[in-house]
Formats: sequence, structure tokens, C-alpha cells
Amino acid sequence: MLTLEQINAATPAEAAILLDGLYEHSPWIVERTVARAAPFASLVQFKHALTQTVSSSSLDEQLALIRAHPELAGKAMVTRTLTAESTGEQARAGLTDCTPEEFARIQQLNADYNARFGFPFMLAVRGPRGTGLSRQQIIDTFARRLAHHPDFEREEALRNVHRVAEIRLADKFGMQPVLGNEVWDWQERLAEESDPGFKEQGQLTVTYLTAAHRACARRIVQDMQEAGCDRVTIDAVGNVVGRYEASRPDAPALLTGSHYDTVRNGGKYDGRLGIYVPLACVKQLHAAGTRLPFGIEIVAFAEEEGQRYKATFLGSGALVGHFNPEWLDQQDADGIPMRQAMAEAGLRFEDIPALQRDPERYLGFVEVHIEQGPVLNELNLPLGIVTSINGGLRYLGEYTGMASHAGTTPMNRRRDAATAAAELALYLEKRAAQDGDSVATMGQLQVPAGSINVVPGRCRFSLDLRAPTDPQRDALVADVLEEARAIAARRGVSLQLEEAMRASAAPSAPAWQQRWERAVEALGLPLFRMPSGAGHDAMKLHLVMPQAMLFVRGENAGISHNPLESTTSHDMELAVLAFGHLLSGLAADAT
Amino acid sequence: MLTLEQINAATPAEAAILLDGLYEHSPWIVERTVARAAPFASLVQFKHALTQTVSSSSLDEQLALIRAHPELAGKAMVTRTLTAESTGEQARAGLTDCTPEEFARIQQLNADYNARFGFPFMLAVRGPRGTGLSRQQIIDTFARRLAHHPDFEREEALRNVHRVAEIRLADKFGMQPVLGNEVWDWQERLAEESDPGFKEQGQLTVTYLTAAHRACARRIVQDMQEAGCDRVTIDAVGNVVGRYEASRPDAPALLTGSHYDTVRNGGKYDGRLGIYVPLACVKQLHAAGTRLPFGIEIVAFAEEEGQRYKATFLGSGALVGHFNPEWLDQQDADGIPMRQAMAEAGLRFEDIPALQRDPERYLGFVEVHIEQGPVLNELNLPLGIVTSINGGLRYLGEYTGMASHAGTTPMNRRRDAATAAAELALYLEKRAAQDGDSVATMGQLQVPAGSINVVPGRCRFSLDLRAPTDPQRDALVADVLEEARAIAARRGVSLQLEEAMRASAAPSAPAWQQRWERAVEALGLPLFRMPSGAGHDAMKLHLVMPQAMLFVRGENAGISHNPLESTTSHDMELAVLAFGHLLSGLAADAT
Repeated sequence: MLTLEQINAATPAEAAILLDGLYEHSPWIVERTVARAAPFASLVQFKHALTQTVSSSSLDEQLALIRAHPELAGKAMVTRTLTAESTGEQARAGLTDCTPEEFARIQQLNADYNARFGFPFMLAVRGPRGTGLSRQQIIDTFARRLAHHPDFEREEALRNVHRVAEIRLADKFGMQPVLGNEVWDWQERLAEESDPGFKEQGQLTVTYLTAAHRACARRIVQDMQEAGCDRVTIDAVGNVVGRYEASRPDAPALLTGSHYDTVRNGGKYDGRLGIYVPLACVKQLHAAGTRLPFGIEIVAFAEEEGQRYKATFLGSGALVGHFNPEWLDQQDADGIPMRQAMAEAGLRFEDIPALQRDPERYLGFVEVHIEQGPVLNELNLPLGIVTSINGGLRYLGEYTGMASHAGTTPMNRRRDAATAAAELALYLEKRAAQDGDSVATMGQLQVPAGSINVVPGRCRFSLDLRAPTDPQRDALVADVLEEARAIAARRGVSLQLEEAMRASAAPSAPAWQQRWERAVEALGLPLFRMPSGAGHDAMKLHLVMPQAMLFVRGENAGISHNPLESTTSHDMELAVLAFGHLLSGLAADAT
Repeated sequence: MLTLEQINAATPAEAAILLDGLYEHSPWIVERTVARAAPFASLVQFKHALTQTVSSSSLDEQLALIRAHPELAGKAMVTRTLTAESTGEQARAGLTDCTPEEFARIQQLNADYNARFGFPFMLAVRGPRGTGLSRQQIIDTFARRLAHHPDFEREEALRNVHRVAEIRLADKFGMQPVLGNEVWDWQERLAEESDPGFKEQGQLTVTYLTAAHRACARRIVQDMQEAGCDRVTIDAVGNVVGRYEASRPDAPALLTGSHYDTVRNGGKYDGRLGIYVPLACVKQLHAAGTRLPFGIEIVAFAEEEGQRYKATFLGSGALVGHFNPEWLDQQDADGIPMRQAMAEAGLRFEDIPALQRDPERYLGFVEVHIEQGPVLNELNLPLGIVTSINGGLRYLGEYTGMASHAGTTPMNRRRDAATAAAELALYLEKRAAQDGDSVATMGQLQVPAGSINVVPGRCRFSLDLRAPTDPQRDALVADVLEEARAIAARRGVSLQLEEAMRASAAPSAPAWQQRWERAVEALGLPLFRMPSGAGHDAMKLHLVMPQAMLFVRGENAGISHNPLESTTSHDMELAVLAFGHLLSGLAADAT
């Protein structure tokens, strides 16, 4: 087994020999990294430095690195000499047991991929848990990545190169992500429960108070109990609450957690990661017999996504007194009122008001969440510090001009509704980019019943505008609305706009954001601060106590609300370690 | 009865008295027009000068003119003193016999209209034929115009003011558009034939070789015979060919005509006007016993629109040898092959090749057509000179970027397919406007299954690019395609483009264009030259002989392929007179 001390003591050339084969036929990566950045405080710091070396290398060097890898499939598998590492990894993923149909499919994908990108398909076949992807997963990934833009796909190939190196490093250093694997496995088991109609298709859907949802709650109760929580309850709104008590009875608690419900056909980590990362810390504390000068209260929120009923944030809302009794009469798609669903689940809605927390009894709220965006993935950073949960406004709009003949209507006599919307779409881009951290999106855009030879008389669109603070959001919205109207006036078209949603921003409490920053720095990772574009349970707790969030990198460009949502057990490990540092820091503050 | 000599001899103030009430409470229009532009060579020149006076007046004067008119509906009808003219016109349109429901509807429309535009609804209730609109037509027009943009609707109100004045002038001068009315009535009767499924709903649809189509052919045969054509035949492709022979047997003929098929739920004048305008001239020649030194061959083309079968220009194509025998196997929506449809109609497709014309036997081809665009309508010009039938290219395209979370994907990390399409849409506008007479349209634009909170990963669009010459078209297309690709490269999205149609430009033969110009000038009208954005039968004849077209103004912003397509019998009269001038000019050239 290697140690980091060996690397730190070695010359660049020696380090490259020690780590021979870490990057396929590319010893220059270790050499340059050690020359530039040694010594390394942690393996994760070394790994990050390796990715930076590749990022700052030339395009030719990057392509050469990808091309240095043997082809995953095709004739090359037979005729080409594979390095021992690669062969072993591919064998573990079972590609050698392909059916003739699978083999033909892979051959075709391989040919298409090479023709399109000019480099071989590079996939870390051991996958995010390190235990190997199935043949079907490999084929699906191959097909999906074939559709990528070449620039993006080159980056994705490099990310897979780094992932292979990460797994090799873990093997060489004998440092497996034991905590991360446990967090992974908890979530994997929890994902076995899924609503009817989805479970049969292998899809994950857990909506409020379905049988699968209640089974999830029971499983979380069991997981919390086994991890060593002192008391685990299911409260009146369906939240699972696990307490790990402080060293002294009247000490306040750190509140943490996230939601266990999912969107339809969603991912396994959205919400749930924020339950199991702190639980891994509690399990460590419990195993070590350690009590902190504050309690830890992990809440697995029953509902955040608003999928079964229109109400959202039912779980975290209940903790701040935001349960509206009118919601009880809302019906789901099958006509079942929430009141009935709660009764069948044995929940007493009369008791929900009593769930409201007294902020005096808590230090604050922290939440770990998968990023649900591409930023950390693209920057090769496992963790990000959330500065604020963005406030947002949504609109549905329509420009109405005059439909006319595309051939006979001169350009200066048109009232084209689509070019009006186009102008607004481009303004959104420009205006949001001005702020740096605002985002503005026209996600819906359609000329209803458009014809190739008709100047559009109508164009429907949507606006989604978000910013880290309410004043910044409001300035963004004001500018966009003003421009939308100015476009209408300039073009002689009319504009209809309807507000569809409004949410306030929830900036992180500075002291708590700094706690996360110190935790990330303690791991040897660079700090990266970012707003959260999506809403989170922390928005609700924000109303009554200080809060701050930690983001964990998502694979696949951070896709979320999608079965492709993923992160690695290595990254989960880092989240657990960061949470542990935050606990230690709080404990030090308290004493 | 007034005469133009009286107006020309009068002072502006005297003219205003002579024409008291021509424009409601607005004698200034006649005064200024006479002061500025007298003497007038023709009534049509005077009318045009009146419209110019209003166009060059201030916005306040224009609004005052509209507001000087009594309200068509509502309490105002009862409580307000109406001028005698207006009351009479409204009575003729039968608005006084409204049912209580109709009256309530008109009251509501009137209130909405005044609230929206701030001026009363102004409609020339005697309509385009001068015989009065029905109550339902008035109500429908009211409702439709309520949706207009205020700027456009003000112009539309002024056009109606001018139309009222035109009808009043015709009454005062005793100059009814007898020829135009006849052309109108011919088309009205022809429009009684419509395909099953449409006729029942009062819609006009005449597609190739249906029963209605064959009934149309028989009616046109009869109209041509009655007008005095020497020989009328239905040829092998279904064209109705009427010959009016020359004064000497071997003289070449002027070829003219247009199509009698329609699109589904189309207008009554698209195509057919070009059959009946020359027929009105033949009728006059025949009645006067006049023979010209050249023959006149009017062809009512059987098919131009490509509605029943995919092939287009079947009728005019046959005259230039463009009938493809493979088309015979094309099937319509009911599975009936063209071969069978022709057999049932008694047409012998074997004889189609013999329809090809020997250009030596013809002087050239002229075609009268409704504009199908807004230009003449907006300029208050009844006739326009076509400089070229635009060449065009059409594409169906799609940008593919990467769908991602609208909240969590920073602006600089997006691959937004919709903003790529938006950028292209705006480039189209800018690039086509550079040429002045090119047009470029993105008629289809859609983010498939777009969500308000998802950055568009795909965006479909269409391109329709047209220009008066092929080199201009090709330069336009080259620039657009280059920009489309540059946008893809800049934004990291991919582009798919598929050519959907290609047509060459057909510039007018200069000598023939000049014949139309002399004819329009002879009427006392200003010349207005314009390309044809739509395709026409003249494109086919263009391949073998010189051609030039005359456009007639369309009402309702020139809408076409729509039941609202319309022109007035006054404008039709001018087209007949222009055609007559063209014939006289040709006769003078020939002697």
C-alpha cells in the first residue's frame, strides 16, 4: 500500500513511477501535478490537483489522454493489447459475457461514437459505487453519450478518466470510502420502495403517504435506531425524527435533515442524502460512545416535492407552523383527500400545530443536498458551499401579433409573435448573466400550430427568474418585465403575462456558512461558493433559525429529477467527513 | 351627378361643399386634397389622393376622423344624431333587425372595443361588393377586430372610412364598378361548388378532380362560352381553355389565366380572379365585335395548390411538359390514386404530353392575382406591379443542447437549444431586411415538452427563405446557414437541418412588366413594384416564355388561404381596366 507521505517525499519522476498506470500511458499527469502542487495535505487534495493538471493541459494532450485508453468494445477488445488494469476493470463489469445481440449493439455504438467524436468511448465501468455497472447500464450510457455535444463529451470522457484514477488510487492507498459506501447502501435499500405503476418499471417514485412512502418511513426509523439514535418517532405530518442526545440534558440541538419523498421517476439522492449523511456521523459518534455538548436532531421530512398534492414543503413547513388546514381537502389524482390519506396512515393532523419548533431549543439548521446542477461536476469539485437559496418568480406569457403569409409579408410589415419571444429569450440570457449569479430561463417556447410558411401570430412562453437575494430578484424581474413590454411596443404585438409562482430568497446565515467552509477546507478541498437554484427544506427553517447548506457534486452534468441522478460513494464519504468537521467545530465553539 | 370636371374646376372650399359628407364631419380632407393635388386625371386618382391626405395627417386628426363617425351599435344608435348617410348605410346592412341576443352581443363588443381602442368601431357595412354585409358578418368582424393591435386597428378603421367614401363617391358620380361587379359575381357563383365535408359548413374547398372541381370546370366552360370565347375545351389534365381568336388566322396568342382549385377552407379569389379578369375583357371585345391582332387564350388551370395529391402546379406544369407519370400512382387521403381520379373524370393522361405549348405560337404569359399579402392594403393602393416571383428554400431544423435545471444551471454553463433558435430567428429578420425585398421566416418554433423550470435541451424550428432572384436567394440562404452553424458552435449545441423545398425565382420579363406599368399609369394610379412572395402558375410558364403578373389588393391585411380573403369589386374593376389597357398596348405594338 502506498501512503501520501511517499508521494510527498518523492520527486515528480519517482511519484510517476510509484503511481504507474494511474492515468493510462500518461505519467506526465502525476509528474506535473507533483512538480506543481506537492506536498498534499490529503488524498482528496492530491486527486483534485490531478484534475487541475488535466484541465490546464492542452486540448491535444487531453485528447491524447483519452485516446491512450483501450476501446471498451469492438474488435479492439480482441486485437489490442489492454493494460492489466483496464482489462481487469472491464472483466469485473461483465462485458465479456455479452450476448451476441449486446455485442453487435456495442460494436455499432462504438463505430458511431468514434465517427462522431474521433476518440474512444471512455467509461469508468466500476461505476459510482465502485462495484461495477451492468452490461445494460454500460450500453445505455454509451447510447446516451453518443448524443452529447463533442465539447461536452470530451469533458465527460475526462471525468471518467479521473473517476478510474480515483478508484485506482483508493485501491493503491488502501483507502476505501467506507462511510460513503454505507450512505450509498442505505439509500440504495431505501430506493427499493416505490409507488405502484413505477416500481414495476424499475422507477423510483415515493409520494406523500402512499404505501411505499410509509414503508420508507419505517425503514428510516429502523436505520436511525440501528445507527444509534436515542429516540426515533414518526410525527403527525409523517416526518421521521431521530434524536441523538447531547452530553447534558438541557442542551440545545443541531437540527438537520432533508426529505424522503421523491418526484415521479426521480433520483435516489435528492433529499435522502441529507438524511443519511448526518446519520453516518451519529452512527460514528454512537459507536465511539461520544456525546457532544449539543443534541443532533435529524428529520427525514415526509414531503417536499408537491407531487401527490399541490402543497409543497409539508414536512419542513410543519416545523415552522406552515401547515394550512385547507390543504386537508385537496385531492390526489385518484380523488383521495389528504385528510383521508393521513387518517389511513394513522397520522393525526390535529397534532401538526404542536410540531412547530421553538428556535430557542436549536443552534440552527444545516442541510446536505445533491447539487442538482452541473457546476461542481464541471469543476471537478466534490463539495460546494451554498451562499443562498435563490428567490424566484415564474410567469406564463404569450405574445400576440398577426399571422400572415411568410412569402408575401415584407419584413418591415410583420407583427411576428415568435421573434418578439426570441428577443425576450436573448434578453433573459444577457440580463441574468450581468448579475453573475442570477438565472433566467424561457423553458417553454411554442408557436401554437405553427406553419412553415406563416409568420407566427402567437407565441407562448414561460419565464423562470431566480436570484440569491430578494432585491436582486426583484431588480431582475423588473428589468425583464420592462423589456418584455418594450419589445411588445416596438414590434406592435401585444403581451399577456401571468405570475405562476413567487418564492423569497433564503441567504445562508454567515456564521453557519463559515462552519461549512471550515469543514471543507479541513478536508483539503478548495472552497467553492454558489447559490442554490432549486428550493430546499432549509428555506422553511430559514424563517425561524439560522441555516446553511452543503452541496454534493452530481454526476451526469448534475441531472436531477431523473433516474440518472447520481453521485459517487467517494463524494458521499467527503460529505460525511465534512459534516463530522462541522460537528467538531460546533463542539469546540460550545466548550 | 357630379363630374370630375366640376371638382377640378372648384376651389378647395367649393369642392368640400360639392362633396359634403364624403368624410364624416371632416371637410378638411377634400379641401386639403384638392388644394394639394388637383386637377385629377381620374376618379381613382382622386380617391388615392384622398387616402394620402389622411395618411399624412396627424394622429390626432386621424383619431378625430374616426371619432366623427357615429357608433355602429349600442345606445349611441338611439341617442345620438346620426348623419343621414350613415343611418342609411346601416339600415341597408339590416343591423336594425337584430335579435335581442345579437343586440346584446353588439353592445358588449362595442363596450369592449371602445375600452380597448378609445375610438368607435368603424366598418364599411356595405362590404366589398357594395351590397351590404349580413348581421353575422358584422358581428364576426367586430369580434375579430377587437383582437387587433391598436396601431393596426386604427389603420383598419381608416381603411373602412376610405371604403365608405369610395362607395359614396361612386354614388355621387354615378360610376358603379359594373365590370368589377361582374367579375365578383362570377367568382361568387363559382364558389358555390365545394368539396363534401366543407360545403356543409359553408367553407370553400375545391381540390383536384373532385365532383365540386369538375362542376367548377363545367361552370367555367359555360362562363367562357357566354362571354364570347370562340372555343372552350377541357384538356387532358383538367384545365379549361378558352380561346378568343385574333383578327387574322395565324396570329400568335396572348396566354393568360390562373388556377381554379383552392386550398382547404380557402378564399374565393386566389387563382380565380386571374381567370375572370381577362374573361371580362374578352366579353367586352366580343360585345363590341372587336378582334385584336393576336388571340387571347385564357387557361383556368385545374391544379396549383397541391392539396389532394402532393404534386403541385399540375395544370400550368402540363403546358410546359412538366407532368411526371409517377404522380399517377400518388394516392389521396382516401387511397384513390391520381390515375383513377383522372379516369373517373374522363381525362386521358396519355394526352397530357400533347398539352405542351409551342412558345412560338404565344406572345407571352400574363397573370392577374390577388396579392395574398398586406402591402397594397396598407398603402391604400389597388394594384401592384410584380417584379419577380420569389425563389425560395425551406428547411426543417432542430438545435440540440442539454436539458438542465433552470434553477441550478448557471447562465454560462448552459447549452440552451431555445436561445440558439431565438438567436437564429432574430438573425433571419436582420439579414432579410438588409436586402429590402427578401423575406425570411421561422414559422415553426417549439421546445418539445418544454417545462417552465428546465433549460431547453431541444428546440425545433422551420426556415422559409425567399428572394426575387436566385443569386439573392442563394446569398441569403448561405448567410443564414452559416449563422445557424456559427450559433451552434458558439453555444455548444448541435444543429440538424433538412431541406424541405426549393424553388427558383421567376423575374418578370422587363418588356411585359412595363406593359403592366403603362396600364396602371393609364388609370391614373401611382406605380408600385413588388416581388411576389407566393408561388404562382406564372412560374411554370416562365420556363418557356416571357411572363409578368399584376397584383390586386387584398382586404383584411391581405389574408389568404382563409375565408377572410377578399378584395372589392372596385379593385376588380381596376384590374379589368388595367388588363384592357395591356391588350390595347399590345394591339398598338402589333400594328
